Amino acid sequence: MKHTIFGESHGEAIGVVLEGVPAGLALDLEAVQRELDRRRPGRSALSTARKEADQVRVLSGMFEGKTTGAPLAMVIGNADQHSSDYDSIRYTPRPGHGDYAGFLKSRGCQDYRGGGHFSGRLTAPLVAAGAVAKQLLARQGVWVGAHISSIYGICDAALEEAGQLRGVAEKDFPVLDDAAGRQMQQAILEAKQAQDSVGGAVECAVTGLSAGLGGPDFGCNVEGIFSQYLFAVPAVKSVAFGAGVAFSLMRGSQANDPFAVEDGKVITKTNHAGGINGGITNGMPVVFEATLRPTPSIALPQESVDLRTGEEVELKIKGRHDPCIVPRAVPVIEAAAALAACAVLGIGS
Amino acid sequence: MKHTIFGESHGEAIGVVLEGVPAGLALDLEAVQRELDRRRPGRSALSTARKEADQVRVLSGMFEGKTTGAPLAMVIGNADQHSSDYDSIRYTPRPGHGDYAGFLKSRGCQDYRGGGHFSGRLTAPLVAAGAVAKQLLARQGVWVGAHISSIYGICDAALEEAGQLRGVAEKDFPVLDDAAGRQMQQAILEAKQAQDSVGGAVECAVTGLSAGLGGPDFGCNVEGIFSQYLFAVPAVKSVAFGAGVAFSLMRGSQANDPFAVEDGKVITKTNHAGGINGGITNGMPVVFEATLRPTPSIALPQESVDLRTGEEVELKIKGRHDPCIVPRAVPVIEAAAALAACAVLGIGS
Amino acid sequence: MKHTIFGESHGEAIGVVLEGVPAGLALDLEAVQRELDRRRPGRSALSTARKEADQVRVLSGMFEGKTTGAPLAMVIGNADQHSSDYDSIRYTPRPGHGDYAGFLKSRGCQDYRGGGHFSGRLTAPLVAAGAVAKQLLARQGVWVGAHISSIYGICDAALEEAGQLRGVAEKDFPVLDDAAGRQMQQAILEAKQAQDSVGGAVECAVTGLSAGLGGPDFGCNVEGIFSQYLFAVPAVKSVAFGAGVAFSLMRGSQANDPFAVEDGKVITKTNHAGGINGGITNGMPVVFEATLRPTPSIALPQESVDLRTGEEVELKIKGRHDPCIVPRAVPVIEAAAALAACAVLGIGS
Amino acid sequence: MKHTIFGESHGEAIGVVLEGVPAGLALDLEAVQRELDRRRPGRSALSTARKEADQVRVLSGMFEGKTTGAPLAMVIGNADQHSSDYDSIRYTPRPGHGDYAGFLKSRGCQDYRGGGHFSGRLTAPLVAAGAVAKQLLARQGVWVGAHISSIYGICDAALEEAGQLRGVAEKDFPVLDDAAGRQMQQAILEAKQAQDSVGGAVECAVTGLSAGLGGPDFGCNVEGIFSQYLFAVPAVKSVAFGAGVAFSLMRGSQANDPFAVEDGKVITKTNHAGGINGGITNGMPVVFEATLRPTPSIALPQESVDLRTGEEVELKIKGRHDPCIVPRAVPVIEAAAALAACAVLGIGS
Repeated sequence: MKHTIFGESHGEAIGVVLEGVPAGLALDLEAVQRELDRRRPGRSALSTARKEADQVRVLSGMFEGKTTGAPLAMVIGNADQHSSDYDSIRYTPRPGHGDYAGFLKSRGCQDYRGGGHFSGRLTAPLVAAGAVAKQLLARQGVWVGAHISSIYGICDAALEEAGQLRGVAEKDFPVLDDAAGRQMQQAILEAKQAQDSVGGAVECAVTGLSAGLGGPDFGCNVEGIFSQYLFAVPAVKSVAFGAGVAFSLMRGSQANDPFAVEDGKVITKTNHAGGINGGITNGMPVVFEATLRPTPSIALPQESVDLRTGEEVELKIKGRHDPCIVPRAVPVIEAAAALAACAVLGIGS
Repeated sequence: MKHTIFGESHGEAIGVVLEGVPAGLALDLEAVQRELDRRRPGRSALSTARKEADQVRVLSGMFEGKTTGAPLAMVIGNADQHSSDYDSIRYTPRPGHGDYAGFLKSRGCQDYRGGGHFSGRLTAPLVAAGAVAKQLLARQGVWVGAHISSIYGICDAALEEAGQLRGVAEKDFPVLDDAAGRQMQQAILEAKQAQDSVGGAVECAVTGLSAGLGGPDFGCNVEGIFSQYLFAVPAVKSVAFGAGVAFSLMRGSQANDPFAVEDGKVITKTNHAGGINGGITNGMPVVFEATLRPTPSIALPQESVDLRTGEEVELKIKGRHDPCIVPRAVPVIEAAAALAACAVLGIGS
Repeated sequence: MKHTIFGESHGEAIGVVLEGVPAGLALDLEAVQRELDRRRPGRSALSTARKEADQVRVLSGMFEGKTTGAPLAMVIGNADQHSSDYDSIRYTPRPGHGDYAGFLKSRGCQDYRGGGHFSGRLTAPLVAAGAVAKQLLARQGVWVGAHISSIYGICDAALEEAGQLRGVAEKDFPVLDDAAGRQMQQAILEAKQAQDSVGGAVECAVTGLSAGLGGPDFGCNVEGIFSQYLFAVPAVKSVAFGAGVAFSLMRGSQANDPFAVEDGKVITKTNHAGGINGGITNGMPVVFEATLRPTPSIALPQESVDLRTGEEVELKIKGRHDPCIVPRAVPVIEAAAALAACAVLGIGS
Repeated sequence: MKHTIFGESHGEAIGVVLEGVPAGLALDLEAVQRELDRRRPGRSALSTARKEADQVRVLSGMFEGKTTGAPLAMVIGNADQHSSDYDSIRYTPRPGHGDYAGFLKSRGCQDYRGGGHFSGRLTAPLVAAGAVAKQLLARQGVWVGAHISSIYGICDAALEEAGQLRGVAEKDFPVLDDAAGRQMQQAILEAKQAQDSVGGAVECAVTGLSAGLGGPDFGCNVEGIFSQYLFAVPAVKSVAFGAGVAFSLMRGSQANDPFAVEDGKVITKTNHAGGINGGITNGMPVVFEATLRPTPSIALPQESVDLRTGEEVELKIKGRHDPCIVPRAVPVIEAAAALAACAVLGIGS
């Protein structure tokens, strides 16, 4: 299943075309909408004040409520745009943002309004595509869930078992431990008051993938497939499977997951490997963590450069921004994981 | 440039075919051999006792010392094999290894001897391919270097500037701070004596990539391209760009890299972004860290399962293994990064 | 440059997303529209009576009149639909059409109205994409032109030289020899009166491609690249380069194109190879012919099967159809060739 | 299943790496060798005098007689080389050959000996790969057969039914009608005596592909997939499915294949569509014809150019060449079709 995302933050519409969707799926558009609502802006003081209905419309690939196997095109209109807020950044790139790199790549022809095609708004069609992927996965008993694992150093409770993630998606602030969640929210609000932003991490689990999928080689490696989807999510700067960076602190005797037999099935007693050995699924949940950088758009003055004159200038950003992207990124990371899981399963190829 | 690696640890030969190598490169085979020597086993007490000459032979794609543009096939013979050491693991998978997942994927037909196609030995052809990539990159002023950034929690000196990595490749133990290096070696030897192994991390920098390469979207994202190459290296379990996981502890005002002008060129004063914003290079060095898990093959007894009977059994592994894969992984990570850099530059596509 | 076409004949809209369009192209939307007008239905008695404005709308990837390098999404609304005409074919596939194969592929969930995603109407977004490709090619001096080479055995004048194709695009009936063209039109009208249809062929030339592009291997072969684009055009059943099928009647001494030097440049005195040797361009125009089958939708009664009951039935098709698709296919073949030429040149990759 | 062919005519060895071969195939290497023997040179006066044993050796991907799922590398040594025969063509390209285009592509670094990587000899590894594909297809009831359909205008008997091709592969001269075959051989010998060569065509059928495979869109279209494999066979200049170019002479009422029910199964009474409608298999045999140009290497003097001086020169070719490539191309076309059929079925993806 191949997805192609198009659109700009302040253009007419954003959207996605999904190729390879198997025919005959009774696509639940309300479920797609619910996923979009999870990442929708303007719901609390923790997120940007921009208000978007984010109603998804299916242009093709569906007939009488079912997918036809033809490309599925979904579009979402753009509404609440304050394009003039962005005039100041046209030639004055925001530090930490894709503005400067994008300016060069687009040879100065970039749609700079609201970050254009680089905007976090482009994660909406990704969530829509992921919602379709989730429905396809559900038919095979595969499930994807995630939680905020940390914000600004404040950690959620450790994920002992993937099943703990059930129900988290319904929460306004998707953590396992609501007390930790309140501390995180406090940190976000403090950053906002300081005209600043904070980073964090999302942990995600995919359950139900059978053992033996993927391969060790370039291109079919499960970690490689997942990471390609995850790094395409704006702000993701690291991806770690299972014990992840903690492997660097371990001995093999701690890191190795002992095999056991449970109900006649081979399992591992621990899951440090994050469900993947040698690039192949081992039947345990695929678990990974993605680090998200702090929102680069902050109200504090910053050092930039005028790309026309080549002079160093101070930049004050207008516009409405999330003081922390992590809460709204949870369904986005799930969507990327769902698409990756479809790729690993060969759904739609 | 597409690389296809083939071979098994105890087969006749291992090798790689590189498609898309531009014609006219005066390929320095001695330089390829030097890279292979950097990862060659059997050089010290820190690595496996297996001895391999690892002489590379070019089968095609070269004529009169230059590449022709046709596929470049390179093979490396296998020599010092103790296949009988592996009889015990045929149906008793080693914890932490690809044995079990590979058994399922191959429907029981896996070449189990020495890990077969899953063996770390398959990184030799990757290094050969990377050595070709390095020579192509050098023509464009792009350079790749790496160091051991940590082993079992012992950290090398922080990399302040990519130039520090020059000269590290020549070291027997490739670190910036040799005192830290000695501590790391001590940790490896202690693990070996305890019949155990240790993990660590490699940090790598790619300099000379111009600004504006890549893109924000799935498939052309620079972080996504690099990570796909890196996770295809056995034992890599996390990949982090720039400040990486530390972004989760930061505020935007700390994380953002201020712009400045130096010699008429736009630079950033810091490089927390690891040279990539919005999936696009920004002209600063691309810097990333990869975590490598401890070698799963350890001499300590471990819990496994007999896949024929479904019974839990204790496993004692024979064979010769690295107590820490990290030192030999340095040129492998560089090779993966070099191939990724070629992909980002569009060399050979 | 990757194109993804979506939509159905009687859906809300059809469209295409073009990835990899280089930034900075001052896209001439009127020129895109002119190409669409060349294939627009309802212009004469020779084509279907369906009337469509076929106005293209750019949703993304353009800003202030220029491409930005982000995906370019173009949509075209559907208007003049007579969906009820198609009720009879829902479970009674039309011979020669994709109905039956599509029914199986879509597991019975196919949008059968007007052929759904299989409709020739889906060539409109292909033409739009090709029009963008033509503008990119023009910047490199590459030009694409075509003519009707035969209909129902009536042949146009032989193409002696690619330059003859200039001006043909502006003709209502795009042939070199208008007398032959009148005979062809007569044959089409006779077929229409007989409630039947006729097939034919389109010959196309691409000029300005430099020598040395492509390669002999699978995936980079110029003939292979072109044919992949051409067979994706509905109704194309054969693709032949240069002398094509006539090579089977030739001796080598006739078939080989003698080399010569003209104005200091290596040329060939003839172009039987169609500009391609060993899968690589040789600097002469790339010339090929594509055969298009007769429109399968004819008003004559035909033998079909009721897919519900498995009974053989007689089928009478309603709906409005082209008695010959070849005239409207000329700009479509050009569009496919333009996209193929971009791929050969590596534009957008 | 992805195949990568490497090697040069006068290099050490040629070979192929097949990725994605499913594990557990008891690969019959003798059957692979038999396919190679079908295209082996030096068996009669009709083919080149070069003698090659063409013994295939498996380097990887097989263990205890079965495929493991890891890349399958097969190599074939080169033996009977007369490299000095080719000195004259180093800078004097042979008309009709890839020499000139290859010279430019390789920036003058081409291995010119025996045509280097452009040599028809590179079809040997393709046949080996196709032989593996045939064994995989056989497990699904899919079979591939071909015959010489014409040489220099002399036609074989028409293929009424794919089953007629059974047994043809065993013939020394693979035609349906041996009398026609003798005429063809006469034409080849006459061309040889005239120091010339002749072209022809191969018709191929793939039986057993179920209905509903493929799709109408670019990249998944069955005709497009087959043609990409077929045009990668040197000398193929046209590919036509079913009635092929004859569609241009037909009315729809003749071209359309009437549906019928046979033994409860939907079939078509004729197979003008060549088993494909709308880019999708319809359950009938996939039938196509490929035209092969006359061997460009002929002993008659030809007009060429000295690429060093830019002067027109007369070229007299030495070396040993097939006066007609078509007989030896039959197993090559079958191999390409077998690999294409695996792609259509999704084997190894």
